Amino acid sequence: MTSSDIFAEIQKKKSFLCVGLDPVMEKIPRQLLREEDPVFSFNKAIIDATIDQAVAYKPNLAFYEALGPGGWETLQKTLDYLPSEVFTIADAKRGDIGNTSTLYAKAFFEQMDFDALTVAPYMGEDSVRPFLGFDGKWVVILALTSNQGSQDFQMIEDPNGMPLYAAVLEKSREWGTTQNTMYVVGATRGSHIQSVREIVPDHFLLVPGVGAQGGSLEEVAKFGMNSQCGLLVNSSRGILYASSGTDFALAAKKEAQSLQIAMEELLSKYLA
Amino acid sequence: MTSSDIFAEIQKKKSFLCVGLDPVMEKIPRQLLREEDPVFSFNKAIIDATIDQAVAYKPNLAFYEALGPGGWETLQKTLDYLPSEVFTIADAKRGDIGNTSTLYAKAFFEQMDFDALTVAPYMGEDSVRPFLGFDGKWVVILALTSNQGSQDFQMIEDPNGMPLYAAVLEKSREWGTTQNTMYVVGATRGSHIQSVREIVPDHFLLVPGVGAQGGSLEEVAKFGMNSQCGLLVNSSRGILYASSGTDFALAAKKEAQSLQIAMEELLSKYLA
Repeated sequence: MTSSDIFAEIQKKKSFLCVGLDPVMEKIPRQLLREEDPVFSFNKAIIDATIDQAVAYKPNLAFYEALGPGGWETLQKTLDYLPSEVFTIADAKRGDIGNTSTLYAKAFFEQMDFDALTVAPYMGEDSVRPFLGFDGKWVVILALTSNQGSQDFQMIEDPNGMPLYAAVLEKSREWGTTQNTMYVVGATRGSHIQSVREIVPDHFLLVPGVGAQGGSLEEVAKFGMNSQCGLLVNSSRGILYASSGTDFALAAKKEAQSLQIAMEELLSKYLA
Repeated sequence: MTSSDIFAEIQKKKSFLCVGLDPVMEKIPRQLLREEDPVFSFNKAIIDATIDQAVAYKPNLAFYEALGPGGWETLQKTLDYLPSEVFTIADAKRGDIGNTSTLYAKAFFEQMDFDALTVAPYMGEDSVRPFLGFDGKWVVILALTSNQGSQDFQMIEDPNGMPLYAAVLEKSREWGTTQNTMYVVGATRGSHIQSVREIVPDHFLLVPGVGAQGGSLEEVAKFGMNSQCGLLVNSSRGILYASSGTDFALAAKKEAQSLQIAMEELLSKYLA
């Protein structure tokens, strides 16, 4: 998928919503537990409920690995159920040396046919490059995450005052292009999105932390939007668990619709 | 497992060898391809051949994920086959925010019963702490890796001249103890092992990069050994693919024996 394909979908749906498919067995509505594969049934219902508002879906691998060996089949079925025009991100935060990263790339891009994979940059260039050699596939590099622990290392400054996350952006933008690299930038630090845009004006940013983690959608759009939108804003728990009753899918739809309406306004306001 | 248990095994086998179980289908001897689960048959043969010399085994998850859904079963069977006195490390290099890390911890420590899991520290404290709450289980934090890309970010210095890998050691040693935390320190930088030991004198270090990646075992022991040995030195390809013929298991055994003999000498020489 190209960035133009993603932007076309954003324009069609007037939304830059990414839905995080992070199902927890304990939180799945009870009536689904009778189904053969309750997690898949839940994902299917969430996808059906949000497909008119979401341009991307992002299953976090931990939630599927926690299901045991059957989790991979549930993930594969979920991926197969998603229509080809939406952007699919395996949130795996992988990162290993060359030959091992190549195996991860093959697992997620060839065997499972995801469009993108999240990658942790700690091990440097040869842990990221293997993901860049797949036509139409994307690597989404952790730059500035939305959790408390992002302060521990990502904000450490070098003698010139450049924080680690900025060094990650500066170096890694040379490894790939705007057609195969995106960055994770947490929305809980709206003020930092501006400095991220100074380094990578044209890359797509994947923004977690709107909703449950408390970031502001308005700030993200104000500082982060570029001429191709350049933003995918993720919501997981806010949509998945909008209701724990039999109306969970309807509640998820309403939540996605309310985000879509806000995003449509922001697209009118800030799209360059 | 406690560090005393690990040290007891080291003293019994006069070895601090960790065998990396990183099987690649294309490299597995042809005669095994007829077996029902060729990768498991290969692992079993390698374990049988090296069990007298190895105190730890470290499957890298990428090699099992690359096998598709069946890969997790192969991994589980391999883990079940390992005797309980050896230390088992899931080399997964995971790292995600709190609730997600907890899921990974449950997957590897409860569902699969590994003794340890490797973790990337980029996301900071709340991505590591969830792994520390499991009795007898260990987190192995990437500090200084052995690949070329380790130069990109791990060596960036703060205004006081402290490189990132040292900041990772300094901060994370406060999160856990010497009974639940180890560090990955690459053997290709023997000169750095000394400075690592200044920060974490008593922690176990998992050292990759001896063998195929060209580190020196002598230097690792000289600068890295403490009163409980404190070292697990990994070899993967050098043992697994010592021969690609029908004699692969015998060749693996010889390679492991030659490492054990060198390690026995170093234990006599440097054990404090």
